[in-house]
Amino acid sequence: MQVTLVSYTPNPELTIAVAARSSASSLSAAKLWDTLSLRQVENLLKQLLESGHLSPFEHANFTFVIEGISRVTSHQLVRHRIASYTQQSQRYVNVKGHSYVTPPTVLSRPEFLIKYQQAIESAHKLYCDMVEAGIPYEDARYILPQAVETQLVMTMNARELLHACSLRLCLRAQWEIMELFGRIKSEVEKVASYLGSELKPKCYRLGYCDERESCGIFATRTAAGTK
Amino acid sequence: MQVTLVSYTPNPELTIAVAARSSASSLSAAKLWDTLSLRQVENLLKQLLESGHLSPFEHANFTFVIEGISRVTSHQLVRHRIASYTQQSQRYVNVKGHSYVTPPTVLSRPEFLIKYQQAIESAHKLYCDMVEAGIPYEDARYILPQAVETQLVMTMNARELLHACSLRLCLRAQWEIMELFGRIKSEVEKVASYLGSELKPKCYRLGYCDERESCGIFATRTAAGTK
Amino acid sequence: MQVTLVSYTPNPELTIAVAARSSASSLSAAKLWDTLSLRQVENLLKQLLESGHLSPFEHANFTFVIEGISRVTSHQLVRHRIASYTQQSQRYVNVKGHSYVTPPTVLSRPEFLIKYQQAIESAHKLYCDMVEAGIPYEDARYILPQAVETQLVMTMNARELLHACSLRLCLRAQWEIMELFGRIKSEVEKVASYLGSELKPKCYRLGYCDERESCGIFATRTAAGTK
Amino acid sequence: MQVTLVSYTPNPELTIAVAARSSASSLSAAKLWDTLSLRQVENLLKQLLESGHLSPFEHANFTFVIEGISRVTSHQLVRHRIASYTQQSQRYVNVKGHSYVTPPTVLSRPEFLIKYQQAIESAHKLYCDMVEAGIPYEDARYILPQAVETQLVMTMNARELLHACSLRLCLRAQWEIMELFGRIKSEVEKVASYLGSELKPKCYRLGYCDERESCGIFATRTAAGTK
Repeated sequence: MQVTLVSYTPNPELTIAVAARSSASSLSAAKLWDTLSLRQVENLLKQLLESGHLSPFEHANFTFVIEGISRVTSHQLVRHRIASYTQQSQRYVNVKGHSYVTPPTVLSRPEFLIKYQQAIESAHKLYCDMVEAGIPYEDARYILPQAVETQLVMTMNARELLHACSLRLCLRAQWEIMELFGRIKSEVEKVASYLGSELKPKCYRLGYCDERESCGIFATRTAAGTK
Repeated sequence: MQVTLVSYTPNPELTIAVAARSSASSLSAAKLWDTLSLRQVENLLKQLLESGHLSPFEHANFTFVIEGISRVTSHQLVRHRIASYTQQSQRYVNVKGHSYVTPPTVLSRPEFLIKYQQAIESAHKLYCDMVEAGIPYEDARYILPQAVETQLVMTMNARELLHACSLRLCLRAQWEIMELFGRIKSEVEKVASYLGSELKPKCYRLGYCDERESCGIFATRTAAGTK
Repeated sequence: MQVTLVSYTPNPELTIAVAARSSASSLSAAKLWDTLSLRQVENLLKQLLESGHLSPFEHANFTFVIEGISRVTSHQLVRHRIASYTQQSQRYVNVKGHSYVTPPTVLSRPEFLIKYQQAIESAHKLYCDMVEAGIPYEDARYILPQAVETQLVMTMNARELLHACSLRLCLRAQWEIMELFGRIKSEVEKVASYLGSELKPKCYRLGYCDERESCGIFATRTAAGTK
Repeated sequence: MQVTLVSYTPNPELTIAVAARSSASSLSAAKLWDTLSLRQVENLLKQLLESGHLSPFEHANFTFVIEGISRVTSHQLVRHRIASYTQQSQRYVNVKGHSYVTPPTVLSRPEFLIKYQQAIESAHKLYCDMVEAGIPYEDARYILPQAVETQLVMTMNARELLHACSLRLCLRAQWEIMELFGRIKSEVEKVASYLGSELKPKCYRLGYCDERESCGIFATRTAAGTK
């Protein structure tokens, strides 16, 4: 899996802060641009997060190239509707390589790992044979295992990144999409360290775990006795 | 594949017409409800469609249970972001049956059909063995072919149905999703015959084909000399 | 102000419950329809709300006719983007009546109330004079006070209703939009009593107040010592 | 009115082109970044526009500071739901200045212009008096004419810019929002000349006018005899 931040709103945190400040200021947003200090920006973002006033975070956008994830995970990923995706098409592109994802639980079981790899290879061979015999890519791909790798270009704004990470960095998420958003977080941290540091599981925001069983980081609401 | 319209906005066409009429009327929308005739409703919808004023169509919603489509097609389907989906989870549900979709191009090639079925059966058997040996459903499913059947509940409003059908009933769409939207159209026609009849490929709306090559129903724009 | 629920997804709570249950069941959603008891439905909705799994709530839609709110409030309302609106147009409709909203803080101050009413009347008279003299409605309206009444048809799904009410029923919201969502809640309660009862300010969901100062219902997070 | 493009996705046209190309290519999107020539980019964008494959345009985002538009126009503007807005709040900000928009049709009628200005001044004075007497900003503003100026920060992606301009640059749009999108187009043209040149009324895309009466640029569909 490879995640590359290929483009983003320049000065993403400043952009968010200026937008937020402008809503409660008689000053022009254009003027605020030059007057907010780094410290003010971070304080402002902190306040917005604590009070749940998240809409200004929409003004910062991030575009990622995501390579080498399975179609299992791309199917989960695109369920986040407030984002833009362009995915490599299996209708028009020949799936040439033997690139497939193997889950860790299979990797650690040698008795299944070999069968898993063989099953993938024989499915892939059948795909190639059908393609060669004139069956369209779009139909031949029905035989490919869901482990088959795909790539996408994804643009997501900071508000949706906060939301998606709150779900997908939770230990209840599946390992592959958790790894994906872990890498997304790392990429964001490189260019917006405070924002990146705030991409975290929902329990950190709530102060408790809202799942049925806690992983241990935060107690569940009932256990915590919050209400 | 089975598509069942399980719920929808009662009087969907009237709801759209009343909303549309209320925007240019000093009358209360509540009063318009009782005064529009069936003929007026249909004329109003026709005008809205011709002039591209589509937002009133959003007030009519349709909820479908969709069963027996492949994960190939569900992955395409959920790319329509202006809709609501609840999909059967392969994380929490054991894929017990042997239900898989076979493309017509494979069905018509006996030499591949047998291999296709064998590949599916052996992949499915490996899935079952791994599940039995304690590998979680969510990981075992990586080996399942994309042909594996899934089911969803989908709610889509009439504006998005018009849009999705304009793309997915085009002969450039893949056969399975074209069949899916064909069945969706049939279900809508049962309860809203005019609206259902207007669910059609984009060329009918445009008056020309905007793809590179026409299927023959409408000429391409260049060929038509429209501009 | 008048709010009328003119249409909605029949059996809204059952629709939500069936969708939710189908995602973790090997049963067909169509079959679940007939098997869930009222008690099961309510328990299921409760679990979904507590764990923040809100997407199934999108399958239930509600269409309201909203009359007699100010353009102040309609401007706030349409900022909820995940909903459908058809608003009475001031471009094409002559604002004939003298219908304007007066805030309670003005109503209770006789010295301003008279001036307020006079200002509205003289603005309205100028509007009428300009219209009569051939100035288009769309331009004459610039002189109308923001208190001028408007009407809309709005369709919003239950997930967005939960979200909008969590913000707009908070005592920090402005009185007019709070009243609007209070009436929306009442309308929903008539046809979906459990769902309606769950339309409440965000603090009830969070277990604490996330605003800077609490209104007293729940302590702020710092005061509560949750974190 | 002042429109300033304060931030945008760097290399917006390249970003769109790379995303588009990657969907039908076995190459990595990251590699495509360095290989597309300016001419290839423009050709690709042209093809996408002609065939209506618009989703890759979502990857380029533009953030504008918009100052000095009326609340009439901001209310129209925020109806474009696929965008992010942060508007100056009249709940928390004192409307100090006398900044109001005057429509050209009023400007050209001296007999009304004076009354218009007087009505604005007296409404504004009442606002100030009420604020001074302790009536909250959020309530005092009910008396302000809809002509009152506001400012917003808006982020919109290129796909939605194409859509919004197709409607708002049409001569059927109101003059103020037409001017607004004219300025938005100018700002985009400075940094993405091809994309900017493609922000134009819908008739240019359709090849005919879909309104009831044509302004003359393109004939209506019936007149054109397209169908």
